Amino acid sequence: MSNLAPSDKAYVPFVSVDNMMKLVHHIGIEPMLAGLADYIEEDFKRWELFDKTPRVASHSEEGVIELMPTSDGEVYGFKYVNGHPKNTREGLQTVTAFGLLANVGNGYPVLLSEMTILTALRTAATSALVAKYLAPKGADTMAMIGNGAQSEFQSLAMKAIAGIKTVRLFDIDKGATRKAAKNLAGLGLNVVECDSAEAAMEGAQIITTCTADKQYATILTDNMVGAGVHINAIGGDCPGKTELAPAILERSDIFVEFPPQTRIEGEIQQMAPDHPVTELWQVMTGAARGRTSDAQITLFDSVGFATEDFSALRYVRAQIEGTDYFQDLDMLADPDDPRDLFGMVRRAAPK
Amino acid sequence: MSNLAPSDKAYVPFVSVDNMMKLVHHIGIEPMLAGLADYIEEDFKRWELFDKTPRVASHSEEGVIELMPTSDGEVYGFKYVNGHPKNTREGLQTVTAFGLLANVGNGYPVLLSEMTILTALRTAATSALVAKYLAPKGADTMAMIGNGAQSEFQSLAMKAIAGIKTVRLFDIDKGATRKAAKNLAGLGLNVVECDSAEAAMEGAQIITTCTADKQYATILTDNMVGAGVHINAIGGDCPGKTELAPAILERSDIFVEFPPQTRIEGEIQQMAPDHPVTELWQVMTGAARGRTSDAQITLFDSVGFATEDFSALRYVRAQIEGTDYFQDLDMLADPDDPRDLFGMVRRAAPK
Repeated sequence: MSNLAPSDKAYVPFVSVDNMMKLVHHIGIEPMLAGLADYIEEDFKRWELFDKTPRVASHSEEGVIELMPTSDGEVYGFKYVNGHPKNTREGLQTVTAFGLLANVGNGYPVLLSEMTILTALRTAATSALVAKYLAPKGADTMAMIGNGAQSEFQSLAMKAIAGIKTVRLFDIDKGATRKAAKNLAGLGLNVVECDSAEAAMEGAQIITTCTADKQYATILTDNMVGAGVHINAIGGDCPGKTELAPAILERSDIFVEFPPQTRIEGEIQQMAPDHPVTELWQVMTGAARGRTSDAQITLFDSVGFATEDFSALRYVRAQIEGTDYFQDLDMLADPDDPRDLFGMVRRAAPK
Repeated sequence: MSNLAPSDKAYVPFVSVDNMMKLVHHIGIEPMLAGLADYIEEDFKRWELFDKTPRVASHSEEGVIELMPTSDGEVYGFKYVNGHPKNTREGLQTVTAFGLLANVGNGYPVLLSEMTILTALRTAATSALVAKYLAPKGADTMAMIGNGAQSEFQSLAMKAIAGIKTVRLFDIDKGATRKAAKNLAGLGLNVVECDSAEAAMEGAQIITTCTADKQYATILTDNMVGAGVHINAIGGDCPGKTELAPAILERSDIFVEFPPQTRIEGEIQQMAPDHPVTELWQVMTGAARGRTSDAQITLFDSVGFATEDFSALRYVRAQIEGTDYFQDLDMLADPDDPRDLFGMVRRAAPK
């Protein structure tokens, strides 16, 4: 090892957007969604192990920037994620994200990854994993209300993990529906474009809502929702942003990731602070019951939790091993003698 | 713009360790320390503007991993930093760090940078900036107690910013002193290697303590500290880690960055929770007095605050403009149509 060339310790594997897309196609979208769901389920099942810091949010008029850290005691992870609903007007993503894993024992990062695509994948994988537990038996049709960036991922994850065969699309913007239908063509799903939310929900056992406006909206009203369905509510995910009429929440059994966070960010921000909810990890470990009757409405009040990102990063870290789908980033100063940082800098002076 | 090539928006300028060292030599170490001090001072002077979230720490037996976010309302920044005192035994850095700036308006990152070197520089620049305000007039000699990775940066910053001409080095490990003396040779400082802390302090108007053990240590005892000096206490920077005898704190006027953080992490964790302190930003704006007499002992109880990292990243962002000292990182997914993330992924499939 020379005094100038960084050692292996100085490098952090980085998965760029380009490499993430290559990894997705190397693995296949559906197998990747299923693989992510396995990791997410595994981590939900060891829920009590995790350091569950609430996310650290920096709010502004335009949106929010958040850091979502967690740790299982051996590996530490965090995600940087923004949410700026008006971004699309300027041709920007509403949500962009990247994430990091580090070794708890020495604090050295071990993975840096884009997470815009990965978050879309893990959100969909989580939804489908939860639907596998909560949707009525034999569910094969999903209403997909809101056909933005997340909709195709949701549809395909529900196919890969929860047995959905038909997706019924609706968006107030017909162009979004057209785009989603085009993107889903030829992927083995029966895709139906619908003219109204009501039409999309015909015959659907799973109803997914995923709209983006930062406001209290009512995408679903009470009379639209029949008995026995599973509602997968994705879009109500920050303070002041909900999609469901409170009356639907009253009729539903509500399942959440991490109650302290969901009560602030989820649909249940509309309810009393002690409104009963069931924690997903308890359903997965068998400590709590999921669906108990055919007539029951189950509701996954999804807001996204740090452990899901952690699981997704763990999955990516395992998958890139032995591949070329990452680059080594010279991100950590690593002098030969750790006390000799200055010497390293000084020796790097041009001759 | 093709459907596959990322647009400009997808790229985040990244300053690697190698490029940071190149930037340091391009600017010059002393001008860079002075430039950093200017940015740090500027941000201290607009202190009330900043979103001062406490740092988010994940503690383990071996050390700590922290996220330090802040924002001035237009730019958001955070630093990832670990502290693992036992790392040096395995040839690793005690502290490694990287940081990020993002646009508050749309949440898009605008800079990712190594911060192991940058933190060393900003810590030293902050110390020297504070000494400029608090050290006795005409101070020209500094005792540097603890000759680890930070010591040369401290010495050079005190030269560049606070007018120090002589540095008197001491470390319980003579090898560390040797290393620091060698690194500082030929840089315009009079460097004296000393056999004891007492010897190092002879004739010194500024006393810098910077030792790394994670424990309550007493690097300075009460009888070692004479009247009129300025103490720059760097190493007491996390719960359970201090360097000064409480009696010294009793005799000193204590200046701190952000009281709620310093009371937990700094030397004053040894004192009552209401022990009087002065906030540095108030000294810099003129709202509070700094040194008021020749006999007074001033003490900077330094723990490092998020705004200093923010200032340092701002400085780097300004300095790399028009240079080659960064690379563009493909970190943000940026589809032509922001709602078409899935389409972007699908179109990236190999033919």
